[in-house]
Amino acid sequence: MASSSSLTLSQAIFSPSLPRHGSSSPSLSFPSFSGLKSTHFTSSHRRILPSTAAVKQPSVRASTAVETFEKTDAATVEKSVNTIRFLAIDAVENANSGHPGLPMGCAPMGHILYDEVMKYNPKNPYWFNRDRFVLSAGHGCMLQYALLHLAGYDSVQEEDLKSFRQWGSKIPGHPENFETPGVEVTTGPLGQGIANAVGLALAERHLAARFNKPDAEVVDHYTYCILGDGCNMEGISNEACSLAGHWGLGKLIAFYDDNHISIDGDTEIAFTEDVSARFESLGWHVIWVKNGNTGYDEIRAAIKEAKSVKDKPTMIKVTTTIGFGSPNKANSYSVHGSALGAKEVEATRNNLGWPYEPFHVPEDVKSHWRPRTSEGAALETEWNAKFAEYEKKYPEEAADLKSIITGELPAGWEKALPTYTPESPADATRNLSQQNLNALAKVLPGFLGGSADLASSNMTLLKMFGDFQKNTPEERNLRFGVREHGMGAICNGIALHSLGLIPYCATFFVFTDYMRGAMRISALSEAGVIYVMTHDSIGLGEDGPTHQPIEHLASFRAMPNILMFRPADGNETAGAYKVAVLKRKTPSILALSRQKLPQLDGTSIEGAAKGGYIVSDNSSGNKPDVILIGTGSELEIAVNAADELRKGGKTVRVVSFVCWELYDEQSAEYKESVLPASVTARVSIEAGSTFGWQKFVGDKGKAIGIDGFVPVLLLEGYTKSSV
Amino acid sequence: MASSSSLTLSQAIFSPSLPRHGSSSPSLSFPSFSGLKSTHFTSSHRRILPSTAAVKQPSVRASTAVETFEKTDAATVEKSVNTIRFLAIDAVENANSGHPGLPMGCAPMGHILYDEVMKYNPKNPYWFNRDRFVLSAGHGCMLQYALLHLAGYDSVQEEDLKSFRQWGSKIPGHPENFETPGVEVTTGPLGQGIANAVGLALAERHLAARFNKPDAEVVDHYTYCILGDGCNMEGISNEACSLAGHWGLGKLIAFYDDNHISIDGDTEIAFTEDVSARFESLGWHVIWVKNGNTGYDEIRAAIKEAKSVKDKPTMIKVTTTIGFGSPNKANSYSVHGSALGAKEVEATRNNLGWPYEPFHVPEDVKSHWRPRTSEGAALETEWNAKFAEYEKKYPEEAADLKSIITGELPAGWEKALPTYTPESPADATRNLSQQNLNALAKVLPGFLGGSADLASSNMTLLKMFGDFQKNTPEERNLRFGVREHGMGAICNGIALHSLGLIPYCATFFVFTDYMRGAMRISALSEAGVIYVMTHDSIGLGEDGPTHQPIEHLASFRAMPNILMFRPADGNETAGAYKVAVLKRKTPSILALSRQKLPQLDGTSIEGAAKGGYIVSDNSSGNKPDVILIGTGSELEIAVNAADELRKGGKTVRVVSFVCWELYDEQSAEYKESVLPASVTARVSIEAGSTFGWQKFVGDKGKAIGIDGFVPVLLLEGYTKSSV
Repeated sequence: MASSSSLTLSQAIFSPSLPRHGSSSPSLSFPSFSGLKSTHFTSSHRRILPSTAAVKQPSVRASTAVETFEKTDAATVEKSVNTIRFLAIDAVENANSGHPGLPMGCAPMGHILYDEVMKYNPKNPYWFNRDRFVLSAGHGCMLQYALLHLAGYDSVQEEDLKSFRQWGSKIPGHPENFETPGVEVTTGPLGQGIANAVGLALAERHLAARFNKPDAEVVDHYTYCILGDGCNMEGISNEACSLAGHWGLGKLIAFYDDNHISIDGDTEIAFTEDVSARFESLGWHVIWVKNGNTGYDEIRAAIKEAKSVKDKPTMIKVTTTIGFGSPNKANSYSVHGSALGAKEVEATRNNLGWPYEPFHVPEDVKSHWRPRTSEGAALETEWNAKFAEYEKKYPEEAADLKSIITGELPAGWEKALPTYTPESPADATRNLSQQNLNALAKVLPGFLGGSADLASSNMTLLKMFGDFQKNTPEERNLRFGVREHGMGAICNGIALHSLGLIPYCATFFVFTDYMRGAMRISALSEAGVIYVMTHDSIGLGEDGPTHQPIEHLASFRAMPNILMFRPADGNETAGAYKVAVLKRKTPSILALSRQKLPQLDGTSIEGAAKGGYIVSDNSSGNKPDVILIGTGSELEIAVNAADELRKGGKTVRVVSFVCWELYDEQSAEYKESVLPASVTARVSIEAGSTFGWQKFVGDKGKAIGIDGFVPVLLLEGYTKSSV
Repeated sequence: MASSSSLTLSQAIFSPSLPRHGSSSPSLSFPSFSGLKSTHFTSSHRRILPSTAAVKQPSVRASTAVETFEKTDAATVEKSVNTIRFLAIDAVENANSGHPGLPMGCAPMGHILYDEVMKYNPKNPYWFNRDRFVLSAGHGCMLQYALLHLAGYDSVQEEDLKSFRQWGSKIPGHPENFETPGVEVTTGPLGQGIANAVGLALAERHLAARFNKPDAEVVDHYTYCILGDGCNMEGISNEACSLAGHWGLGKLIAFYDDNHISIDGDTEIAFTEDVSARFESLGWHVIWVKNGNTGYDEIRAAIKEAKSVKDKPTMIKVTTTIGFGSPNKANSYSVHGSALGAKEVEATRNNLGWPYEPFHVPEDVKSHWRPRTSEGAALETEWNAKFAEYEKKYPEEAADLKSIITGELPAGWEKALPTYTPESPADATRNLSQQNLNALAKVLPGFLGGSADLASSNMTLLKMFGDFQKNTPEERNLRFGVREHGMGAICNGIALHSLGLIPYCATFFVFTDYMRGAMRISALSEAGVIYVMTHDSIGLGEDGPTHQPIEHLASFRAMPNILMFRPADGNETAGAYKVAVLKRKTPSILALSRQKLPQLDGTSIEGAAKGGYIVSDNSSGNKPDVILIGTGSELEIAVNAADELRKGGKTVRVVSFVCWELYDEQSAEYKESVLPASVTARVSIEAGSTFGWQKFVGDKGKAIGIDGFVPVLLLEGYTKSSV
């Protein structure tokens, strides 16, 4: 395997030996930055082709290269396209499960993208300056797997294609970034991918604006996306695309696979809007390729035109035939999500003139694609040289960009976190959160984010920065508008662009209901987004039950690989942020109060990092008479109740349960020291559903909470629920 | 209070004495149909005006009446509009909380709608054939409360206005249908309202197509909606409006309050798309009223034009000034969501020439609105007469329509539910669900629904009906496309249109994450939607973790007023449907398997209705050695495990926990008979998160489940989690 020395860096960062979902320690160690060696290549924008390949396979993948395109002979293109089609057909047939229709229709645009247009290095899927590709219509993943296979990615070997959708496969039924190197994000739930693509393109635009210099364009890539009818029906795609138009993300190029078929049949039954006109209304440049099945030059011309439009994203509507090539199933829903069946596979082989065995890649197709590997290595080497020059001239900027690329946080960053004493003024945790956000933005070069039109309520503005806008993309305050779902998915794209980009986003906690689809993908795809969720309980005031979270804490505590924090004061808020920043493969949610809370005695950043810890205790021998457990605004209530009980002669322990998931990760010994089995008199107090609390209060304990909708403001007298 | 005898009916149905959230019995009793007496009024479409009112106040509220409009004198209109503005200002000021900006800007369109255009009967807010109004921008609710007050609704008296946003108020901080008669749906979370409006308009169109006769138009009303920039940014609104355009809902008229301000400031910072062009692309007729502040005739002309377009919904973009009249705060975000403050209230009073005390309605404004009450009663009386004629000519249709209006289910409907024996063939509960859906559609005239492009996977097609489409609106299969969130909110609108409309909607269970916002509003607003959610666990197969529910059962069990069913076989599926149909004020979710499940011995409709019940037991004296608890596909596993244990000499009870919420409603005695306190050897088995199971298995029990994402298909060997 050809591999330049600089590959090691990014590969090491993403190596599967790193802790995955729910690592037991809140700290991750990052490899040191060792790559980016200078080489003999020039820093020209033009792609540098290794000599042997250059002679035989003129190529067009550098960013300016479409203009200088020299065609591969048409027969080879056709053969490569059919290879993609049959790899998809064969893999789905072998699995007897999957979606052959999209790959058969989208093979031409897929071929052109990976063969002629995109910059990437197959042997280092994590090379920083690669073009990003997102298959938003994730069910058609065999398209991407076939392309990764042909392009020379180690992640998709012939045996992988044969294990598609089966136990232990590296190429699952929908694309998953954490399973298959070369896949950027996790798609499948429709509409997520295009929104991720907006996030990836935003990240590129922001970093380019911050770091590029007239003599050194170190950030410069496109983001490509294929989306289908289903993605375009989903509201999230309209939200994200409205923002992409607003932000003028010119290097985002989306292909709309216009095939008129969805699972239930012809899109005529539910989808008759004018999609092109809608995208135009959103501020996109729109192109229509009428023959996506065989119109290769039409596709090429569209990409060229798209690249020439710098101030708008482009949507290329490509009209295709789903299941192209299948004589009896093309253009029907039957080819959308089921194997063709042996008979129809045979008929398709005959129809497309494909005499080969299943999974066969003809030798001339292989040799056509082979140079992609050396070219990719050369692209990265060239970029490394460019970066080395940059580092010499602009050492400060280079250090920041390195931190963003590698995820290695600046030494001592955590010292920036504010600390509090009981004498510090009472404050709402949303305000304390803002102190943390602003402290972190000063020391973390990749820290950026914003709110869904509630910045002044969520308290999320970074005071030292302006707004990220079309003409000020170097700024770090993101303005998402009232688009929670799009916001979450865009942040997933940002987080997965570079390890050191740490996006946060915000709304009222109750509106997580609007963005839960994206939040679950954060958790699944290991995108360490920080969700800043204020107005965390009925303590929010007069807005009424539409705005009052009840079941939300429980609903996220049940979700895998996401940390649900409910800090009680300043120290716990800082502790939550410390963990959230460190946990780059686990998203965090901070539920924060609107109302003022006192700074409590006994809280700490270290305690918060353990998830549950003792705040105060007047007992000895690990045998208090009673344990009171609180979270967030109710920890104060627990503290006050303990004071009363102690006056009556009881020994009382107060425990803060700021993050259940972190507590669950602690040792049995530690847990026994906090909640000794022998002490069954336990009471939890939380202004939310009591659902799940039985786990900590036990059969003999009591959970006090709120299990129904509450008509209006209720600041005292929580409903008691004996569980 | 003037009230015709026919009012009693609908009022009785909605009387507050009916069981609310989480009634303890699955059966509701419905009042008998006693109204619709014939009267001396003709059945002309033209509004019948009581004689005194007719002389002094020519009015234009009948459906064809805009054309015959005679203007109220301009000064009175202006005064009425300012009354609305100041009621909003004063109520927000009094509460020191709320949103005065929208009511101040939208008062002119609000006045015209309620004073000149809409058909309603203030003394019977539930009169079936009323025009529906939805304030999608629900934060501006003082607009609607002021209008209801002026129009003579008993629900909003002067003292109510003075209690706005306060404890015990009948007019909460966002409009809630269950609190304030005259409010159709619950809005506030942005975008829900416009989608509800699409559902209301769909219901009208469907019922009109089914029941109207050339000589008797018994269903004939408009649906009006005011939505703001925030609603238009939300993806759900695009989903719902795309469907409204597709369906050609010509009697849906939406006013877009185009005021350029959202919470974070000018919409320029995040919302620069061309909204009008977008709506045109969605198939809407679009009109622009450039002067929404004082252009009364422009607004009137737009409504007239909108009504003339029969085959498309209309969006009237009304450019307004938020906080119109406030000299220092108009057109700024500061007037969006905060009280003006005493000084600015004074300045606004001066500016608009308003010499009155807070909450004062000038006598001439009162007398201008007074006739709305008698006119409304006359409208209903006229309609009752029309319906009486209809009933004579078309008794069968009338009986069905009556059932839909009153919610009184046809006698013996539940006999249509299929039953099963252990000898019945094994089948997936999604298929058994389809048997139930089709059985119910035969006997319930208001039963209709569909899927978000997964009809053939969710098994939701009603075989005896065609598709509800533009040209076949009488049909009952709804095709929502891939628009889960819009689907849920549209179903809320359908459910809240008429008590006997019972909508169901479907997708994969995991995609409830996309529609949770609408599902929570179902729960809160007491909309008895039935959510048919298939592919309920990792048993779904090869699609991978993006498609596998893990935490979803727990997340809904924690949500108030929603029933989370996971039936194990045919009898339990029928039992779940029986309860779901009866619980008209509580939505239900059915989690259904993709895979085949056996028909078990001991399951029953009656058992399922109790939520948790004994399926088998070989012990005596309520003292089994062990209790095995299962749900859905894992009940079979529990049954098989019990057989094994019994062979080993143990006494074992198997309990099905098909719906936790229903079990929680049972008596302590019943619960002790199912889960005796003395038996602590309990094991639960469920292919989902173990979160919450401690409640039933207790400190000494074990919960077996799946608490993490699962890479791919896993049909056996569930992760054991000891909780």
